[in-house]
Amino acid sequence: MGQTLTEKILDDHLVEGELETGEEIGIEIDQVLTQDTTGTMVWLQFEAMGLDEVQTEIAAQYCDHQTYQFDFKNTDDHRFLRSAAGTYGAHFSRPGNGICHNVHRENFAAPGKTLLGSDSHTPTPGGLGELAIGAGGIDVTVAMGGAPYYIEMPEIVNVRLEGELPEWATAKDVILEMLRRLSVKGGVGKILEYTGPGVETLTAPERMTITNMGTELGATTSIFPTDHQTEDYLERVGRGDEYVEIQPDEDAEYDDEIVVDLSDLEPLIAQPSMPDNVVPVSEVAGEDVEQVIVGSCTNGGYEDILPVAKMLEGRETSMETETIVAPGSKQASEMLAREGWVAEMMAAGVNFSEATCGACIGIGHVPASDSVSLRTFNRNFEGRSGIEDDNVYLCSPEVAAAAAIKGEIIDPRDLEEEKEDLEAPGVELPEEYDGSKTDLIAPDEAVDDELIKGPNIGDVPIRDQLSSDVEGEALLKMEDNITTDHIIPATQDILMYRSNVPKLSEFTLSRVDDTFAERALDADGGFLVAGENYGQGSSREHAALCPMYLGIEAVLAQSFARIHRANLFNFGIVPLTIDEDTYESIDQGDEIEIVDDVYDAVTSGQEEFTVRVGDDEFTATLDASERERDILAAGGKLAWTREQAEGASGATPADD
Amino acid sequence: MGQTLTEKILDDHLVEGELETGEEIGIEIDQVLTQDTTGTMVWLQFEAMGLDEVQTEIAAQYCDHQTYQFDFKNTDDHRFLRSAAGTYGAHFSRPGNGICHNVHRENFAAPGKTLLGSDSHTPTPGGLGELAIGAGGIDVTVAMGGAPYYIEMPEIVNVRLEGELPEWATAKDVILEMLRRLSVKGGVGKILEYTGPGVETLTAPERMTITNMGTELGATTSIFPTDHQTEDYLERVGRGDEYVEIQPDEDAEYDDEIVVDLSDLEPLIAQPSMPDNVVPVSEVAGEDVEQVIVGSCTNGGYEDILPVAKMLEGRETSMETETIVAPGSKQASEMLAREGWVAEMMAAGVNFSEATCGACIGIGHVPASDSVSLRTFNRNFEGRSGIEDDNVYLCSPEVAAAAAIKGEIIDPRDLEEEKEDLEAPGVELPEEYDGSKTDLIAPDEAVDDELIKGPNIGDVPIRDQLSSDVEGEALLKMEDNITTDHIIPATQDILMYRSNVPKLSEFTLSRVDDTFAERALDADGGFLVAGENYGQGSSREHAALCPMYLGIEAVLAQSFARIHRANLFNFGIVPLTIDEDTYESIDQGDEIEIVDDVYDAVTSGQEEFTVRVGDDEFTATLDASERERDILAAGGKLAWTREQAEGASGATPADD
Repeated sequence: MGQTLTEKILDDHLVEGELETGEEIGIEIDQVLTQDTTGTMVWLQFEAMGLDEVQTEIAAQYCDHQTYQFDFKNTDDHRFLRSAAGTYGAHFSRPGNGICHNVHRENFAAPGKTLLGSDSHTPTPGGLGELAIGAGGIDVTVAMGGAPYYIEMPEIVNVRLEGELPEWATAKDVILEMLRRLSVKGGVGKILEYTGPGVETLTAPERMTITNMGTELGATTSIFPTDHQTEDYLERVGRGDEYVEIQPDEDAEYDDEIVVDLSDLEPLIAQPSMPDNVVPVSEVAGEDVEQVIVGSCTNGGYEDILPVAKMLEGRETSMETETIVAPGSKQASEMLAREGWVAEMMAAGVNFSEATCGACIGIGHVPASDSVSLRTFNRNFEGRSGIEDDNVYLCSPEVAAAAAIKGEIIDPRDLEEEKEDLEAPGVELPEEYDGSKTDLIAPDEAVDDELIKGPNIGDVPIRDQLSSDVEGEALLKMEDNITTDHIIPATQDILMYRSNVPKLSEFTLSRVDDTFAERALDADGGFLVAGENYGQGSSREHAALCPMYLGIEAVLAQSFARIHRANLFNFGIVPLTIDEDTYESIDQGDEIEIVDDVYDAVTSGQEEFTVRVGDDEFTATLDASERERDILAAGGKLAWTREQAEGASGATPADD
Repeated sequence: MGQTLTEKILDDHLVEGELETGEEIGIEIDQVLTQDTTGTMVWLQFEAMGLDEVQTEIAAQYCDHQTYQFDFKNTDDHRFLRSAAGTYGAHFSRPGNGICHNVHRENFAAPGKTLLGSDSHTPTPGGLGELAIGAGGIDVTVAMGGAPYYIEMPEIVNVRLEGELPEWATAKDVILEMLRRLSVKGGVGKILEYTGPGVETLTAPERMTITNMGTELGATTSIFPTDHQTEDYLERVGRGDEYVEIQPDEDAEYDDEIVVDLSDLEPLIAQPSMPDNVVPVSEVAGEDVEQVIVGSCTNGGYEDILPVAKMLEGRETSMETETIVAPGSKQASEMLAREGWVAEMMAAGVNFSEATCGACIGIGHVPASDSVSLRTFNRNFEGRSGIEDDNVYLCSPEVAAAAAIKGEIIDPRDLEEEKEDLEAPGVELPEEYDGSKTDLIAPDEAVDDELIKGPNIGDVPIRDQLSSDVEGEALLKMEDNITTDHIIPATQDILMYRSNVPKLSEFTLSRVDDTFAERALDADGGFLVAGENYGQGSSREHAALCPMYLGIEAVLAQSFARIHRANLFNFGIVPLTIDEDTYESIDQGDEIEIVDDVYDAVTSGQEEFTVRVGDDEFTATLDASERERDILAAGGKLAWTREQAEGASGATPADD
């Protein structure tokens, strides 16, 4: 039987296990990436584990989220990250050099390689045929130390593309269409492998728009086969020699198939406040837009901004709309500047920003109250923009530019009718991606050989071994689709404490209930209860680390998002799956007790646990590999790794 | 007897009083400017006074301080300002269009006119022969309503420039030399009028670097005569028809004279943490620099950044130094982008920012802890950068670029010796300032005709009439040179409450004593005690408004900075001057009583007040015009203006 593209790459990197859906496999990691909001913890853990030097082919530390450096803590974090990259042998990308995914794809991403990154949009280079997976920071730490990455073998779904995109429909509309059909839960436990005759009609950057935002489907990753488009892109970025052809076998078997006819697509838009709330742009036309932002790792490339520049050339943005362009990389900025496009955009009324994730996570350019913001980003979770009750729409750069000109949402095809000299800009790649690399410091050029820690950079907390008795209050009951932005918001006032867990923990779940953190600390142990898809969104491990710090011992949820579930194991919190009836039966404030000896049950491989809530008993399921159970029992991955190193297995459980 | 240039302009605008040093005069204001951190209060007061329409020739509302919009409150402020400008007939400069002083000089500043602005660097267009004065917001409000601006006639000092600047010495070094000689108090009560043969060797933008930073001397304003350089600049900005020649008479008499031989100057630098702490750059050479920022209203023009771009062309910035360029106006950005310089700077490692005041007031790019930041700005007050214990140096763009290349402070003349192809870039003006004006909305293009207030935009508090009995605790005793940055910091976490006085007041003097605000509120009345030059720095009226809100009734200081003193009158706080012995005799916590019937004494013109501190009595002086006394008695300018409007004079004093 033939292999899928995914199976070929996995096979090539397999260290442990078999490629059977649902089985845990261990794979070798070729490349890792981290960024500034997850990277400090990665390196603090690297240090705490006593590791010496990066073992992967490529490790790259980017500074992209907090490049505005609102607080000295941000600047200190960047300095610490430079020192860590220098000390341990990683590439360092300076603040302002761009978003990790953009800079990585321009400099390092390569077909057939594996990439693990502590950012949920790590799958971006799937568009180049790299198998790229987002993970919690500690998984990245361990992989960087040379250990395999363990994952449950996902289902592999064939997304068959047919036809060709019509004018004004873009790669962004392909992934918005996928979200419209599948929802933000539709990709959970799956790898989406794009195939079919439509693939070759898409340039590599367009493919990377799709793989980037595959994350919003909940997919483990998304990947395209390689072909002349891949080779063409690699040549333009000066790395043509890294091209290898990888295609699925003709008789490859997939777990499922989805067909998307590109020629049926039209400009789409995700309405507030979920990326799957997708409708045709024409359905929401006429809505006044106060802010338009072009950029982010989804649509911040040279090829994404060029169409906007062409549409704005010789025109003016609406006086009622603030239009901001924040490129995904300084390379894109520099090329657009060199060709005169930056000047053109400025002349049209664009506020041209440094290259940054910025506004996408609520850092800068927060929308005004009671206003509509239209963005080319990948997420519009409520409040993520930095203001509660926001109205953020997601769309292609072309739809964004049309709104900037019109001052309201408009299908660009209708704008084309209004403005006779407006043409669909299409997709154009530069002859050569020739931006300079001054801001990317290679390990052999490193300026530091020891860690520089500012006063806000703290230690990594470590949990004790798992208890036998787990009981306590249902401290918070939450709905479906709680995101890691809910658990630990990434707005500036909070983000600056990413290297300071005690302080950061004060903000845990504050967007759901601002009394939670204090109640949890007072309770000294307890449960979180949630609906479906708990922990979707960003990969931030702080969403497990902070609840751990507050004493949370277990989460009862109807289902978990993949990365967050792994983070719960990594920080010693028991993730138990419950059914809808059980969910309905638990009220916030209820006393919950796990009847089993939890330490024994976890280590012995028990799957069903009896949960007592008042007088009732329910069943909760722990779906975990042996390795995950060992990690949980040890109190988390850091404790487990240390234990492994010390050979101190077989300890008796703590009884507290 | 001949007239000075200042006297000519004042004569031309005189509405009340005579041009005798120390006498109060009322002058007609031709132009006003406001910005986003002082402007919201200006327009709220404009509304509270029931005024209908701007009466000055030009009124311009700029959005420049908080253009990163870290919080929705900032974005709401910008929207409110756009709506106010539209409603009342002011020009509106959108966020990202640049710093008020830069955009104003490019578009509106004109020789012979008077300009009043709610920003302390309003004197900038003095370099074009405009008499430009910084004031509290409420003074700007009133002037915008058509009333005269009142000021005590300052001394006029002749600053005679001789010779010509040698290579690598710049206009920045002229003003740093002035600061070195005169200190930050040296210009208090004075207008500095530049004359002599050195004047014509300086282009208009260079002159404006000098007049801009004359504010750091405490001067009321600084001004240059007009000549071919002025005309040349006005022609290049497309306003040659606004040129008029204004020169002092040959037999003009000045109160004092200072001679500066330009040919004696060398690259200078202001060390932490006061702009007058000036030494030759060579004296501090070798100090490692972690951050370099080029920009601000002092050195953010096209002509300021071009030398940096030339010095960086084909070179790389140090990998240990983060180099940020934040132009003063989008016009400068656009021109530099169009000519390829933005791309060159990016290639050299520059993080190119939107046009903003930003980092100059601690908003973004806050230095790392325990690090040196070298900036082309005008102020380096401790903590203003956003971190306490900062080490901020002030210098010319050339010295900044040299440090960016070297990674440490270096005299650019020494760098020239090290790098054989490095040349002094000199001063070069563009053929034409041809950036577009898309982001400057004229009153007749306004998009709003009513005020748009977000939830954080509050009402203006109004104080009751002055009491007869003023007594209370010395709530805080402060040293010399307390700045308005100490009184109300402008960092982001605080700045966003500029339109919300009750919340903002919680931060009053928190940088001196973070228990102050609460103690003051609890005390319900009391005194501030300070040394020399109390309230220097920014013009922000919140530095009087918030103490007023907290119940402060009087400030006892050895001397007051001009704008802040006016703001104290404007908000009904009695500014009493004490001598050094009295200052020494008062301890924080002492009970203080003004023995006189304060209301009667103030209204009757009494100058000496008896202050009882415990068993001792001292004399304090109120130096105030009749108009200032009326304002104080009424409880501040807003109450006074309303009273005037209602014809309700002669009310009896409140007795509380």
